[in-house]
Amino acid sequence: MRFKFSILAIFLEVLIIVLFGIFVRYENNQPSEKDKLLLYPFFQDVHVMIFVGFGFLMTFLKKYGFSSVGINMLIAALGLQWGTLLQGFWHMKNQTINIDIESMINADFSTATVLISFGAVLGKTSPVQMLIMTILEITIFSCNEHLVVNVLRATDTGASMTIHAFGAYFGLAAARVLYRPGLKEGHKNEESGYHSDMFAMIGTLFLWLFWPSFNSAIAHPDVQQRAIINTYFSMAACTLTAFALSSLVKHRGKLNMVHIQNATLAGGVAVGSCADMNIYPFGAMLIGSIAGVISVIGFKFLTQNTSSGNSVTGSLSAAMQAAALGCSVGIALVGGAFAGLILNLPFLGQAPDENCYDDSVYWEVGYKCRVIRPSGSAAFIAFY
Amino acid sequence: MRFKFSILAIFLEVLIIVLFGIFVRYENNQPSEKDKLLLYPFFQDVHVMIFVGFGFLMTFLKKYGFSSVGINMLIAALGLQWGTLLQGFWHMKNQTINIDIESMINADFSTATVLISFGAVLGKTSPVQMLIMTILEITIFSCNEHLVVNVLRATDTGASMTIHAFGAYFGLAAARVLYRPGLKEGHKNEESGYHSDMFAMIGTLFLWLFWPSFNSAIAHPDVQQRAIINTYFSMAACTLTAFALSSLVKHRGKLNMVHIQNATLAGGVAVGSCADMNIYPFGAMLIGSIAGVISVIGFKFLTQNTSSGNSVTGSLSAAMQAAALGCSVGIALVGGAFAGLILNLPFLGQAPDENCYDDSVYWEVGYKCRVIRPSGSAAFIAFY
Amino acid sequence: MRFKFSILAIFLEVLIIVLFGIFVRYENNQPSEKDKLLLYPFFQDVHVMIFVGFGFLMTFLKKYGFSSVGINMLIAALGLQWGTLLQGFWHMKNQTINIDIESMINADFSTATVLISFGAVLGKTSPVQMLIMTILEITIFSCNEHLVVNVLRATDTGASMTIHAFGAYFGLAAARVLYRPGLKEGHKNEESGYHSDMFAMIGTLFLWLFWPSFNSAIAHPDVQQRAIINTYFSMAACTLTAFALSSLVKHRGKLNMVHIQNATLAGGVAVGSCADMNIYPFGAMLIGSIAGVISVIGFKFLTQNTSSGNSVTGSLSAAMQAAALGCSVGIALVGGAFAGLILNLPFLGQAPDENCYDDSVYWEVGYKCRVIRPSGSAAFIAFY
Repeated sequence: MRFKFSILAIFLEVLIIVLFGIFVRYENNQPSEKDKLLLYPFFQDVHVMIFVGFGFLMTFLKKYGFSSVGINMLIAALGLQWGTLLQGFWHMKNQTINIDIESMINADFSTATVLISFGAVLGKTSPVQMLIMTILEITIFSCNEHLVVNVLRATDTGASMTIHAFGAYFGLAAARVLYRPGLKEGHKNEESGYHSDMFAMIGTLFLWLFWPSFNSAIAHPDVQQRAIINTYFSMAACTLTAFALSSLVKHRGKLNMVHIQNATLAGGVAVGSCADMNIYPFGAMLIGSIAGVISVIGFKFLTQNTSSGNSVTGSLSAAMQAAALGCSVGIALVGGAFAGLILNLPFLGQAPDENCYDDSVYWEVGYKCRVIRPSGSAAFIAFY
Repeated sequence: MRFKFSILAIFLEVLIIVLFGIFVRYENNQPSEKDKLLLYPFFQDVHVMIFVGFGFLMTFLKKYGFSSVGINMLIAALGLQWGTLLQGFWHMKNQTINIDIESMINADFSTATVLISFGAVLGKTSPVQMLIMTILEITIFSCNEHLVVNVLRATDTGASMTIHAFGAYFGLAAARVLYRPGLKEGHKNEESGYHSDMFAMIGTLFLWLFWPSFNSAIAHPDVQQRAIINTYFSMAACTLTAFALSSLVKHRGKLNMVHIQNATLAGGVAVGSCADMNIYPFGAMLIGSIAGVISVIGFKFLTQNTSSGNSVTGSLSAAMQAAALGCSVGIALVGGAFAGLILNLPFLGQAPDENCYDDSVYWEVGYKCRVIRPSGSAAFIAFY
Repeated sequence: MRFKFSILAIFLEVLIIVLFGIFVRYENNQPSEKDKLLLYPFFQDVHVMIFVGFGFLMTFLKKYGFSSVGINMLIAALGLQWGTLLQGFWHMKNQTINIDIESMINADFSTATVLISFGAVLGKTSPVQMLIMTILEITIFSCNEHLVVNVLRATDTGASMTIHAFGAYFGLAAARVLYRPGLKEGHKNEESGYHSDMFAMIGTLFLWLFWPSFNSAIAHPDVQQRAIINTYFSMAACTLTAFALSSLVKHRGKLNMVHIQNATLAGGVAVGSCADMNIYPFGAMLIGSIAGVISVIGFKFLTQNTSSGNSVTGSLSAAMQAAALGCSVGIALVGGAFAGLILNLPFLGQAPDENCYDDSVYWEVGYKCRVIRPSGSAAFIAFY
C-alpha cells in the first residue's frame, strides 16, 4: 500500500489546510469566555470516547489490536477536520466558518458515525479504503444531519438517529456490498483473545462512563442536567438487564463478553433522542432496561444472520415510521452501499481473504526496537 | 447459574423501576444551573474511579480478569440505583426523592463500599451472591451513614470511615463467614500474571489520580480547594514511602506490585476524614507518609494472618476509641457477618473450591466471535 | 538495592515535609473560589497525562512494563513535591510559598521534564539513580524556567522550550554520559511485544487527547479557548502526516507503532510555544503537519545514530538561533551531562548490562499472591 496510502493522506491534509485557510476562523463573538469553558469538560469526555472508547472497544480480535486502535485514531483525526468543514458549510456567516468548543464537540460527533461503521467492516478493509470511507461518510452524514435537524426539525439531542442509526446502517450497507463469500465460513483470526477482550473493556468502560456527557454536551443549558441524569440511570438499568439476558441466552448460563462490551451501551443510544425531555428517571430506566434486553437478543439474531445479509430488513419497516429516522436510515443505506461500491474499486489495495483480521498486513509486528525509544523524546526534539 | 441469576437481576431492576416511579423526581429547586455544572467534572472523576479504578484494580489475578472488571461493573450499576433510593429515603421532601448531580455523586460513593468488600471475597463468590451482597451492604451502609453523619455529626468529608473502613470491615467479616478450609493452602489460580498486573495498574492510577476529586466532591465550596490540595500532597508523599517500604520489607529489596497497586492509595483514605480542614500541606504529607508505611506493613501482616481470621482484632480496639468510627466498624462487622450467612445459603450457586479464581466458570472464554462484532454496531441499531 | 533506595526515599520525603512545614501555605487571596475551580478540570487532564500518559507510553518494552509505569509514578510523585518547592522559591511572598490549583498544574509540569528524560535512559538506570536525577533535573529546570520566562520574557505557553526541549536534551546528554559500550549491539530484551505495544497506546492516547489542556492550562483566560483550538487541530493534522510518513519510510509501506505512539504527539509540542497566539486554525494545522513529517524522519535518523552519540549535533546549531531556546538547550545539555556524571557514581546500584530492560531486577515477578489482595481492602484499613 506504500505510495497510495501516503499520497492520499498527504493530499487530503493539504486540501483540508487550504480549505481551512480560506474558510475557517476563530469564533470571536461569544457570550463569555468563562461560560464557554464550562463546555470544555464535556468536550474532553466526548474526545476520550472517540479515541479511547471506540478505539479500544474494537481491539477484541486477538491479532487486530494495532489496526483497531491505530486506524480508529487515523479515521478520527481525519474525520474531525473534514467534519469541521462539512458541518461548517451549513452554518457559514459572511463566507466564514467560525469555530469554538461547541463546533469541536460537533466535529468529534461526526467522526463517531465513521467509527460505528468501521465496526461493520473491521478486519476486511485497508487504510486507504478507510480514508475514502471517512470522507464519503462524513460528507453524506453532514447533509443528512442538516436535513433532520434543520429541515425536519426533529429532536435528537443525543444524536441517536443522526449518528448511531446512521452509522450502523451505513456500515451494514457498505459491508453488504463489500461482502466476501470466502469468509462465509469464518476465518481463523476472527477470534477474540483473553487479553484482547480485556483491552476491549477499557473501550467499553470509557464509552459507558462518558455517555452522559455525549447526550448532554450540546443540550440547552436549562436541560443539560436532566440529560445527564436520564442517561446515567438509563445506562445503569441497561447494564443490569444486559447481564441478565447474556446469561439467559447463552450456553449453560454463562456470561458473554460480546454482550457486556456492547449491549451495556445500548441504554445510552436508546435514551439519546429524548435524553433532555421530562421522561422522569424511571422512564429513562425503562428505556434503558428494554434496550439492554433487545440489544442482547438482537446480537444473537444478527450473529446468525448478518452473513446472509437479511438481518436488517426486519427492523427496517418499523424504523421507517418516523420520517426523520427513516430519512437517516434511508440515506445511510444508499450512502453506505455507494461507499461500498467505491471501496470495491480494485486499485484500493484491499487485502485478500487470507490476510483479513491480521495486523501484520499493515503493521510491522515483532520488530526489534533497539535504541529507538530509549531516546523516546526524539519525537519532541526532532522538530527543533 | 442460568435462571437464578437472570431472574434475580430482572426482578431487582423491575423493583427498582417501580420504586423510582413512586418516589424519584428531578431536583428543580436549584441555586443555578451553571453552578451545579461546576460539580459535573467532580462527578465524572468519581465515576471513572468506580468503574475503571476499582474495576481494573482487581484484575491482578491471571485468570479472573473478566469477572473482576465485569462483575465490578454489574455491582456498581445495581448499587448506584439502589443507593439513590436508600440514601434518598433519609432525605425525602413531600414523600419525594429529588436527584441532581450531587445525589449522583453520593450514589456512586455508596457503590464504593461494596466494591471494597468485593476485594475481600474476590474469586470465591458467584454473581448471584454479589447481587444479594450489593443490596444488603448498601442498605446497611446507608443506615450507618445516616447515623454517623446526621446523628453523631462526625466530620467525614472524604468518607474514610463511612465508606472505606465500613467497606473493608464488612468485606472481611463476610469473607470470614464464607471461609473455605479447602483454600487454606492456596489455589493454583490464586496468582497474578505479568499482563494482569499491568491491567491492575490502570485501576491503581485512575484511583490515585482522581482521589482529590473523591475527597472534595461533596465538600463545602469554600474549602473544596483545600481538600484538593491536601489530598494531592498526601497521595504524593504516601507513594514515596510506600515504594520505600515495599523495597524494605521484601526479599532482596525488590519492589512488589501488591504494594504499589494498593499502598500508594492509602494516603487518600488516611487524609479523607480531615481533607477539608486546615491541616497545612505538610500535615497532609505527614499523614500520607505514615499511611504509606503502615499500609505496606499492614499488608505484610494481613497476608500472613487473614486466613486464620484474627488479623482484624488487633486494630479493632484502637479503632473503637472514636465513637463514629466504632459505629461504622461495629455495624460493618455485624452486617458483614450477617451478609456472609445469607450468602452461604446453599441454593445461591457458590462455586466449589476447585473452580475459584477462574473466569471460565461464569464466562465464555476462548469463543469464536465470528461475524458478531464485525457488525459491532448491532447493539446500537437492534433497538430500533 | 535494599537499603540505599529505601533510606534515600525516606530521607527525601522527610526533608520535603520539613521544608513544606517551614515555607508552604494555602493560597488564601483568590479572585473567587468558583473561578479557581474552572481550572480544576485542566489540572486533572494534565495529571492524567503525567501518570497515565507518560507512564504507559513507556511500557512498550516487552519485559519492562512494571518499571515503566511504576518508576514513572515514583518520579512524578517525588517530582511534584520537589517542583512545588523549587518553583515556589522564585515567587515567595513574605518568605511563604502559596499554593493553589495553578501551582499544582505547574508542579505537574515540572515532573514532565524528568519523565521525558526518563525515556532516554529507560531500562538502563536503577530506582536510586532516578530519585537523584529527579532532584537534580527539577532543580536545574526551575532555574532555567525562571530565566526563560521571567528574565528573557519568552512566550512559551505550552512550555515547548522549557519542558519538552529541556527534558529531551537533558535526557540525551545524561544518556550520553551513561553510555554503555556493551549495549552497542543491542540487547535481547530491548524489544517490544504485541501486548506491551497495546499498553503503550493507552499512554499515547491519553497524552494526545489532553494535550489541548496541557497547552492552555496556564494561558490567560482570554486566549485559553484559542490555545485549545490550535492544539486540537495541530494534533489532528500531525496524526495524518505521521501515519502517511510512517508508511512511506518503512519496509513495504507498513505502519510502525514507534511512529504512531510518538510522532502523533509532535503536533502538540510544536504548536506549544505559540498555541495562544492568533496563528489561525490553518496555521496550527500547518505547524502540526510539518511536525508530524519531521518527527517520523527524525525518529528514523536518530534510530540509526543515537548509539554513536552524534545525532544531536545536527539540530543543535539551528536551535541555538533563538536565545531562549538556546538557553534551555544549553542548560539542559550541561545539566544532563552533570547529572549523568553523578549517576555514574559506582555506589548507586546501577545494574550490569545483562540485567538491563528487565523488570525482575527491581520487581518481584511471577509471585504467588495468595490471600493477599482477596483482602484487598487491607491497604485501607491498615491505617486505622
